This record gives sequence, C-alpha cells and structure tokens, in this order.
Amino acid sequence: MGLNSKIIFHLMGLLLLCNGAFMLLAALVSGIYNDGVTLDITLAAITTLFVGVLAMFYTRGHKKEVKRKEGYIIVTLGWLVMSISGILPYIFSGAIPDVTNAFFETMSGYTTTGASILEDIEALPEGILFWRSLTHWIGGMGIIVLAIAILPLLGIGGMQLFAAEAPGPSADKLHPRITDTAKRLWLIYFGYTAAETLLLKLAGMSFFDALNHSLATLSTGGFSTKNASLAYWNGEPLIQYIVIFFMFLAGSNFVLSYFAFKGKVQRVLRDEEFKTYGIFILIFTIIAALVIYTKANVPVSEYHPMVSGPGESAFRHALFQVVAVVSTTGFVTADFTGWTPFLTVFFFGLMFLGGSAGSTAGGIKVMRHMLIIKNGLLEFKRTLHPNAIIPVRFNNKTVTEHIVYNIIGFFVLYMLLFIIGALVLSFMGLDYISAVGGAASSLGNVGPALGSLNPLSNFNGLPMLGKWWCAFLMLAGRLELFTVLILLTPYFWKRT
Amino acid sequence: MGLNSKIIFHLMGLLLLCNGAFMLLAALVSGIYNDGVTLDITLAAITTLFVGVLAMFYTRGHKKEVKRKEGYIIVTLGWLVMSISGILPYIFSGAIPDVTNAFFETMSGYTTTGASILEDIEALPEGILFWRSLTHWIGGMGIIVLAIAILPLLGIGGMQLFAAEAPGPSADKLHPRITDTAKRLWLIYFGYTAAETLLLKLAGMSFFDALNHSLATLSTGGFSTKNASLAYWNGEPLIQYIVIFFMFLAGSNFVLSYFAFKGKVQRVLRDEEFKTYGIFILIFTIIAALVIYTKANVPVSEYHPMVSGPGESAFRHALFQVVAVVSTTGFVTADFTGWTPFLTVFFFGLMFLGGSAGSTAGGIKVMRHMLIIKNGLLEFKRTLHPNAIIPVRFNNKTVTEHIVYNIIGFFVLYMLLFIIGALVLSFMGLDYISAVGGAASSLGNVGPALGSLNPLSNFNGLPMLGKWWCAFLMLAGRLELFTVLILLTPYFWKRT
Repeated sequence: MGLNSKIIFHLMGLLLLCNGAFMLLAALVSGIYNDGVTLDITLAAITTLFVGVLAMFYTRGHKKEVKRKEGYIIVTLGWLVMSISGILPYIFSGAIPDVTNAFFETMSGYTTTGASILEDIEALPEGILFWRSLTHWIGGMGIIVLAIAILPLLGIGGMQLFAAEAPGPSADKLHPRITDTAKRLWLIYFGYTAAETLLLKLAGMSFFDALNHSLATLSTGGFSTKNASLAYWNGEPLIQYIVIFFMFLAGSNFVLSYFAFKGKVQRVLRDEEFKTYGIFILIFTIIAALVIYTKANVPVSEYHPMVSGPGESAFRHALFQVVAVVSTTGFVTADFTGWTPFLTVFFFGLMFLGGSAGSTAGGIKVMRHMLIIKNGLLEFKRTLHPNAIIPVRFNNKTVTEHIVYNIIGFFVLYMLLFIIGALVLSFMGLDYISAVGGAASSLGNVGPALGSLNPLSNFNGLPMLGKWWCAFLMLAGRLELFTVLILLTPYFWKRT
Repeated sequence: MGLNSKIIFHLMGLLLLCNGAFMLLAALVSGIYNDGVTLDITLAAITTLFVGVLAMFYTRGHKKEVKRKEGYIIVTLGWLVMSISGILPYIFSGAIPDVTNAFFETMSGYTTTGASILEDIEALPEGILFWRSLTHWIGGMGIIVLAIAILPLLGIGGMQLFAAEAPGPSADKLHPRITDTAKRLWLIYFGYTAAETLLLKLAGMSFFDALNHSLATLSTGGFSTKNASLAYWNGEPLIQYIVIFFMFLAGSNFVLSYFAFKGKVQRVLRDEEFKTYGIFILIFTIIAALVIYTKANVPVSEYHPMVSGPGESAFRHALFQVVAVVSTTGFVTADFTGWTPFLTVFFFGLMFLGGSAGSTAGGIKVMRHMLIIKNGLLEFKRTLHPNAIIPVRFNNKTVTEHIVYNIIGFFVLYMLLFIIGALVLSFMGLDYISAVGGAASSLGNVGPALGSLNPLSNFNGLPMLGKWWCAFLMLAGRLELFTVLILLTPYFWKRT
C-alpha cells in the first residue's frame, strides 16, 4: 500500500505517552483523596507509558512525511488507541470490571458524548471520577486540533470554510498551524475551564465537583459526579446559570473567543454562524419555556424545590436543556422526555443541530445547516431562472460549489448512518423511541436520549453488541464521519 | 405580475369538466346498485360541470402560451381544484358531512395516499365507495402526465433524467409529449387496471370489490372497500398475491412496461432503477419474513386463518407489506407495527424509499436514493483524489452536476419538511411515534402510519388542524415538493 506505517505507530506511541501522563495526574488526585485506588491507576499509567515507549522505540528513524491517507488512519486509530488504553484505570481499579462497559465509557468520554453505563456514579472513588471527567477534557483538546488543523487539510465536510477563518501563519502547512493556532485555542480552553471551576466553587460547589463539571462542560462532554447530574443542584439556580453560560461558550467557535480577547468584538458579533447559534438557542428556549410553563404533564414544581417561582424555573430548565442538547453537552436538570410529547420530538430534533464549527460540540453543526438551508432556498431561485449562476454566500464570501457539495455529502451520510444506526439498535430489541433516540444521541455526541435511554436513565440496559454499536456511532460522529468511514471503503486500501 | 391568469382559470375549468364527467360515472354506478345516493352524486356532477363551464366561458380567447411560472400554479392549483370539487359527492350524499373530513378524504384520494378518516367503510353506498376509489385512479392519471411531461420541463428534483428515457417525439415540446407519450402510458395504466379487475374476479372477489381494489392498486392509492383492507382476504392467498403483483407493477416505471410490450425485454432488465427496486424488495421481504417467522410478538397464526402453514403466511405478509409500503400503496394485511419493535422502525424507514420514477408511487423514489448514495460514495473517492473529476453515472450515462444538485436539494427539502411535519403534529398533541409516522406517511403518500395512526386504525382521531396539515403534506409530497413550496416563496410573486 505504500503507507508510511512507521510514523503511524510512532504517533500512536506519542499519544499513549500523553495518555499515560494524564493517568498519572488522575493517580495524583486519587492519592490526594486517599480513595484506595491510587496504586491501580498508577499501574494503568505505567502500562500505558510502557507500551507507548515501546511503540516509539521500535519506530524511531521513520520518515517525517505524513500523506493524506495516513492522516485518516492516524486520526481514527488515535481515538481508538486513546479509548482502548483509557479503559485500564477502570479495569485495574475494578470500578468497571467488564471490558465492553469500560470501553463504552471511555469512548463516550474521549468523543465527549457523555452517555454512561454507570448505575451508581457517586459510589466511585474520586480518582476514577476525575479520570472519567479527564477523558472528556482530553477528547476536547483533540477535537480542537482536529477542527483547526487536520480536518480542513483532509477536505472533510466543509471544514475548509471554517479553517480559512482561523488565525495562524498559513492555511496549508500542517506543522506551524498545530503548534501555533492550536496552542492559542488550548490556552482559551484551559482558561475557560479554570474560570468555570472558580465560579462554580464560589457559587457553592465543592472544589472537586466544580473541577469535574468544568472539565465536562468545556469539552461539551456531560459526565457528572452526581447520579442526578445537574438536577442535584436544582435548588441552586446560580450554579445552573454558570454551567449554562460555559456550555454556551463551549458550543461556540473558539476562534471567536480568541478574537474577543484580542478586542475585536465586532468580528464576533458580525459572525453569521455565531448570530444564528445565539438566535436558535433564544427561539428554542422561548418555545420550550412556554410549553413547560403551560402544558408540562409533570408540574415543574414537582421536579425540584421551588426557589424562585414557576416562571423562572420553567425558563431555567428550558434554557438549560436547550443549551445542553444544542451544544451536545448533555447535562441534565430534568427529564425532557417527561414534559410533553411535543417536547420529546422537539429535543429529538435539536440532537441533529449541533454546536458551532470550531467548538468542541458534536452533531451536524450550525454552519452546515445554514449552508444547506441557504442552498436549498436558492434552489428555488435556480429553478425559476435556470440559466443564472446563483452562488451561496457565507459571512459575505462566496462559498464554492465544491464546499457546498462536501457539506451536503456530509448531511446525507449523517442521515443514512442515523437510519442504519436506529435499525441496528431496534434489531437488537430496543423499542422504536429508544432505538431512534439512542442512534441520534450517539451519532451527535449528545449523551442522554429518549425512551429507555432517557435523561434520567443510562445506557447500561443495552445489549453488549448495542454498546459496541453505539461506541462506533460516537466515534464516527465525533470524527465527522468521513475520517472513519473512508477506512471501510475498499479503494482506500488499494495501492495507487 | 404578468401572469397569464386567463389560461390558468381556463385549464381549471377544463379539469372541473373532467371531474364532473367522472362524477357522472360514479352516479351511474350508484344507479346500477340502486344505493339511494344517485341523485346526490348527479347533483354534485352538475354543480362541478356548471362551474367548469362558467370558468371556461369567462376565460375564452386566452393566449395559448404557458410559461414556467404559470406551470407551477397550474399543477398545484389543479390538484386543489380537483380535491375541492371532489368533496361534493361526499357532502351532498351525507356520507362525509364534515368539510374538513371530506377534504382530507379527497386530498388523500387524488394524491393516491390512501389515508382515511372513515370509521366504517362498509356502511357506505356503492356509488360513494366507487367515487372514493375513482379519486385515486384520476390522481394516478394526473401523476403520469406530471412525471412524463410537466415536471421535467419545470426542472424539478432530477425528473429531467427520467424524462430523457421516456418515449415520445421530443423532450422539449410540451404539447406533443402530453398527447403522445401520456396516451400510450394511460393505455397501459388502463389495461393493467382491467387485467387486475378480471384476475381478482376470477380469484373469487365480487366484481365491485375487484374493480375498486384495482383502481386503488394501479394508482398506488390504498383505499379499500373493506374496513379490514386486504386483511379481509387473509384466508385467500391467491387474491393477495394478485394484488402484490399489481402493486409491484404500479410502483415500477410505466415506461418500462411500454418497452416490455414492445418486446424490448432486455431494455427492462438492464434498467438500473428497476433492478434496484426489485432487489430492494427481495432483500427487505427476506428480512421481514425471517423476523415475522421467528420473533413476531403476535403469532402469525392469530392474525388470520392458517391456510398454508406459518412459513408461507409469514412470507406472504412480509412480501405484501414490503411491496405495499415501498410502492406507497398502503394496503394492509396485518398491523406491521404490532409485529416487533424492529419491524416498526423497519417499515418506518421504508416509508422514505418510494417506488420508481415514472410510476404512480410517491416518496423520495428509488432513482433519487441511488444517485444520492452513488454520489455520497464517490465523495470518498473525491476526498482521496481532490483534483480528479469523478462524475456520477446512471444507466451507463454521465449525470450532470446540475441534476445531482437538484436531487440532493430535493432530498434535503424532503427531510426538512418531514421534521417540520412531525413537529407540527406533535405540537397538536400527537405522541412521538404517531407524529413522526404520520408525517412520514403523509409526505410519502403511503397511507397507514405508526402509533395511533397504525395500519388497523385511521386518521379520524387527528385534531381538525392536523387533518389540514396532513392534507398539505400529502399535496407537497405528491407534487415533488418544489411545485407547491415555490408558490410560498416571496420572489415567485415578484414581477420580473
């Protein structure tokens, strides 16, 4: 095949070293809390580091050049290697003894999905809980590099468009972009995480909970340290508003944050995707709040202590769940499938929206929806005037047909994979709503789903094969479909 | 606007004359069966003819020229005028006294959907039952003209591609094509209807039932004269196999039937869409039959008298329901939502397939799915080789990018309208499954849906606005979306 397999394994070794280092951090947390699993996590770290060193040692002297084909393999294999090594702390500590369950939990972590198989989260040692949140945060870091530096070069689903907007020395050289742009955005990512931790602590959370929830917020992950997720703090609106604010930030383009910090606020407010993202959330919140306030089957007052009247409560739950689903974080303050039938369909629909390009959010993404809808509406004009050339425009620039094609190809593939995903799940015995909801939620990296996988439940009831299937959907969704699926085509493996 | 409104109204008058003539035919049937509503139906016919004559009289001396914009109006308004005048026999006879219900039933008829609000079909007079079946058959005739002669000229959703295949003197002149191609295909349509009537009569149906079911089969409509639909004949496999055969024909391209009658059988067997249509049905039947045989919650034996063993029975029900849903006929031999959760999702998925282009079937259509999937798979190749030009091929011909664009635009619009359709229905209080199923079934002109709208139920339980909304979805789906929706865009109505 002429693939440079040495550099692939070399980079996998490097990833294992990073992952092992993060495990050592989890072991440190475990030691501080003296939770009894410090040695287990340390052993997991050593195993991971050892394999990483071996891989790097045996592939030294590789050619530095990475070609397009190797790029796809590196990204997909990278996420797999992280997820496989990431199960060691769970297995060694006995927190999740079953390999299928542990793999589901790590894949859900690194893909920043947040679906869990855990029945009793609060019973776990602190070191393991921290490791669980950390997999989200590591995954989020990976997504930022991916979106900024790798996917645009691989030409996937219109990410070229977004990349042209990103700051950095050059759009075509991989290395300077990773080291420069990614570092700037990681700094923002890190800063936001620290800021949220501080604010949540000030608002009354314990430091441990504040840190873990911040790791899971900025990565749009959704793992909580509480069985009830954010509903645990239903009596403390301030905490929930802080989380809402950072979920909103995590689902917006980090490049815009960079411009905002540079003082170029006009640049942010003029951004079409950001405006649409904001307006969408506003409209959806108003609709959901009105329905909850007037029609919810389960009175809002039964859901949590009334702190500030039913109006504020309906608004807050609506805003929280809309931002949680649109940003694909998936934190939960209430079971949105228990409100009204309309709101079940409504939140199911939101699972297909996704956050902004250049954020850590999953899903189809606002930018793609905008371009597809713009192009669809222009199709009417083109039908009326068949000889006129009517291009799509985005942020005052003309979008090439090639990119529109890319984006539409992505959308069609997404819907196909969703349908196949739901069929496979229902074939495994899930009822209609659970199958459809589980597929949409996994593919969009949201977390909570519908039916038996509703926000108050978990994914432990899935059959074993169902867990592997959902893990596959999470990975495919997270890596923008093409990166993973192209490896399954026969011509990818043909010598050229 | 510079629209030639005279010719629009003139053609509406002509349609009313045709519809009135068909009503006279129904009055004749009513008279033969002496069912007591002969005068009512005759009065409906006279009213319709009178309005038609008035319209034609006041618009005489119109310019003969029809422009593109007027084309859209004529098609959409035509279906509306037929549906509005078509309610008169129901209203005058008192069979369906409510205007909403009567309109739903006629729109479901002319769009060949087959969803019904009737609780007790068998209680209706013969003349009304015949009129009901006739609305399907008239609708089917309309679809044939539309697909062959009008939509390709209006440049809608890739129908150009199909039109190039159709026999006829010229691809660009509207008049010769209607009078020539459409007449040939109408002859086939008429011949098939007569053949099915004869065969069903020979197989043991009464002549009246045989005729009505044939009218509803060839148009892929689905109205039955029995409350139990085709399940009434669950003890007579021969009747069901005859219906299956003609549903299959009705969902295939009529142009291919024309070639077959000309002796060009090779032409039929080489056709990519026909092969795919056949293979899809085969595969789906095998899957459904295996699941029914091994897993159905409701034993097949409880569903109907056992005539030929559970194996044959499972196969027949699977084949019947697969062909009924794929061809968008919607006849029912068993409640496919009651078999297993998997089969519910399975048949829901099939609602999006649709029959062949150039058939009377609704839905997205096999040809479009093939081109979208082919293009999607080629997108992988294009991603790997960004500088190569890799076109889509269909029936050994290159498909232009413009047509692929058209088709993808259609697909995206279809999915959007489905989502909006389901949201609106659920907003009216329908539960998740019923809302999603009702929208998919109405838009695809299938008929039976899921949940409270399952195959053994009917659409009478919908709220009033829900009936109008479903009628709108049926119309939009039937007229390939663009024809209807373009009338709702502001620039359509701008002077140019």
